[in-house]
Amino acid sequence: MAVGYAGLSTLLAVPGVRIGVTCAGIKKADKRDLVLFELAGSATSAAVFTRNAFCAAPVVVAREHLAERSPRYLLINTGNANAGTGRAGLADAKLCCEAVAKHANCDLHEVLPFSTGVIGEPLPVAKVTTAVPALLESLSEGNWENAAYGIMTTDTVPKGASRQLDINGQSITLTGISKGSGMIRPDMGTMLSFVATDAQIDPELLRECLRQSVDISFNRITVDGDTSTNDACVLVASGQSGVNIEKGSSGHAAFAQALNELLIELAQLIVRDGEGATKFIAVEVNGGRDQHECSQVAYTIAHSPLVKTALFASDPNWGRILAAVGRAGLDALDLDAVAIYLDEVCIVSHGGRDKDYSEERGQRVMQRDEIVIRVELSRGQAHTTVWTCDFSYDYVKINAEYRT
Amino acid sequence: MAVGYAGLSTLLAVPGVRIGVTCAGIKKADKRDLVLFELAGSATSAAVFTRNAFCAAPVVVAREHLAERSPRYLLINTGNANAGTGRAGLADAKLCCEAVAKHANCDLHEVLPFSTGVIGEPLPVAKVTTAVPALLESLSEGNWENAAYGIMTTDTVPKGASRQLDINGQSITLTGISKGSGMIRPDMGTMLSFVATDAQIDPELLRECLRQSVDISFNRITVDGDTSTNDACVLVASGQSGVNIEKGSSGHAAFAQALNELLIELAQLIVRDGEGATKFIAVEVNGGRDQHECSQVAYTIAHSPLVKTALFASDPNWGRILAAVGRAGLDALDLDAVAIYLDEVCIVSHGGRDKDYSEERGQRVMQRDEIVIRVELSRGQAHTTVWTCDFSYDYVKINAEYRT
Repeated sequence: MAVGYAGLSTLLAVPGVRIGVTCAGIKKADKRDLVLFELAGSATSAAVFTRNAFCAAPVVVAREHLAERSPRYLLINTGNANAGTGRAGLADAKLCCEAVAKHANCDLHEVLPFSTGVIGEPLPVAKVTTAVPALLESLSEGNWENAAYGIMTTDTVPKGASRQLDINGQSITLTGISKGSGMIRPDMGTMLSFVATDAQIDPELLRECLRQSVDISFNRITVDGDTSTNDACVLVASGQSGVNIEKGSSGHAAFAQALNELLIELAQLIVRDGEGATKFIAVEVNGGRDQHECSQVAYTIAHSPLVKTALFASDPNWGRILAAVGRAGLDALDLDAVAIYLDEVCIVSHGGRDKDYSEERGQRVMQRDEIVIRVELSRGQAHTTVWTCDFSYDYVKINAEYRT
Repeated sequence: MAVGYAGLSTLLAVPGVRIGVTCAGIKKADKRDLVLFELAGSATSAAVFTRNAFCAAPVVVAREHLAERSPRYLLINTGNANAGTGRAGLADAKLCCEAVAKHANCDLHEVLPFSTGVIGEPLPVAKVTTAVPALLESLSEGNWENAAYGIMTTDTVPKGASRQLDINGQSITLTGISKGSGMIRPDMGTMLSFVATDAQIDPELLRECLRQSVDISFNRITVDGDTSTNDACVLVASGQSGVNIEKGSSGHAAFAQALNELLIELAQLIVRDGEGATKFIAVEVNGGRDQHECSQVAYTIAHSPLVKTALFASDPNWGRILAAVGRAGLDALDLDAVAIYLDEVCIVSHGGRDKDYSEERGQRVMQRDEIVIRVELSRGQAHTTVWTCDFSYDYVKINAEYRT
């Protein structure tokens, strides 16, 4: 069960965005595994994708189609990533798009494909194409919750969130869903996430909003350091509220803040549901010379199997955190100036155990489900935060048994 | 039990090197935990240490002493790393050296301290100093095997190897021991390793031999990507054989080759005994533009928790290897040119599953205890190999319960 998860919150419909969900039999029978977003003709869209060089066939096709036309349909299957499938995989992804285009009577390039699941198996195209008519029949604005279930793979809980805000006295809605649990260290994308608003935003501004928001949300989480071949995050603005967001306006600032909050919530939901996770960890690094070195330290801690297994065991074995800071590769690091905290407890100062630290105080923090590891470098003004989880028996179990 | 471990081989005495071993009570009672090497007055020594910025107190002191004098004694304790112990830790390391200097009647700077074990606990100095007389009494050339046991921490087996070679018709001996099982991703050093020869080698050449040899042995292994605070590798040349190794001579080449073989064997022994290891994996990367990018790819695979858990499960989930290659950060990688092999079986070519690959063929390789993962980048002449192990339940168990 995901750490600190209070159930799926109410997902508000976004006018101009209808969603179809069905069971196509790609996963086990009767499991929702195929989702279709239908976007109003007025909608603008922006997307970011994985930087993994071996990116999946649907990522290649989605990029291609997005360059041609503004999308009307997003087709998402789980149970098969269509990655590592070479040229056949590209053809398969296109066949799926063609089925939607034919039945929905739109241009092929107006359909973007997304896949998630096991890597390297051929996509069962017939199952997808056969299910398209049922998928179109099921289209409804009220299907966000259904879709949150329909994109899950090893996720144990569905992930979604909504925001409503007033801009110039008019209300707009923002709703998003995400999936992901393992192979999580997004790089300029994320696992799959789909976010829509009924605000009206021109494509260039929408891309800018998405990029800056992904950078402080999905690009700040890690479960196991493995960047997926299929990461994608899509932001759609249907325009149906009639509220136009102008660059530099107070509305822009309010929208950007709401988007940031929403994406951070969705990103944190992925970490809370990280494979085998029993704890939710924020790693804060302050006082670095620049953002890059703060990230280096934060990710070295967040990826250390030794730190993560100590967190799992609730063992305040802080020497492992100190060792991770030490090997993060920072130039001319003054150990005497470094301090490390677990929540409110200072564990390291002046290169060694803090004089007021006791095993009991460390133990008290480590028992918690949610812990902040804070590193003060004291050599500059930059700071960053990344979110991660612990490393448990269940991570090994889930990933050793994934295909069996 | 270590993968492919056939028992500790016979460790040959090295004239000019005597070893003392005792139970000082730092670990559990009656466990060998304190080792002393005594080097003949004629001996030259070279050492490499961890690059972890939070290096341990004994590493700082050993570096200092080594800069002052040629060492006569190497004092090694297990059960406590004396790391993250600030200024008190430095004083403690010096007190231990002083005890040896006093009883052995030598200069303080002629004693180098080494520690391994839990980080952040104060070193029990009195236990060490009290044991020094017994340690000196136990000095013997025949104690290498004893010492291999005496430096173990979470190791499940002792590690050591010997070589004998003829140089200009005269015989010389090379013997070394090492320890290490977790927190293994040495950087310009290793976990602890002590190697001695009775050849006569001037200090500068000795340093050169050690550096190049460490670079292709201890610096090519990883268990969990965590670089220790205490890594050190020491090479001693006692000179007692009367065989002088001259730079550039055929003897130099023969010595360097024997040293390489010995250090690779010792380094591989560490990986074979990696915490929780059930498989021994060589990751070979060929055809890179330079050494650096080959290392990037090799370590990205060797550190991937997803690859390592699939290896544990004997699951030919090769998509995870492909995803790791893809996220290794190589500039302008041509996927069509990349091929990936598991032993003799080609799994990936032209960006997707090889046409002759079958799950059965992959499965057959994955059942093996020792597997080579080979990546052909086909864009240059550089190559590298790193050695690693799989990631099992026992890794989590060992590290979650380390201090309990």
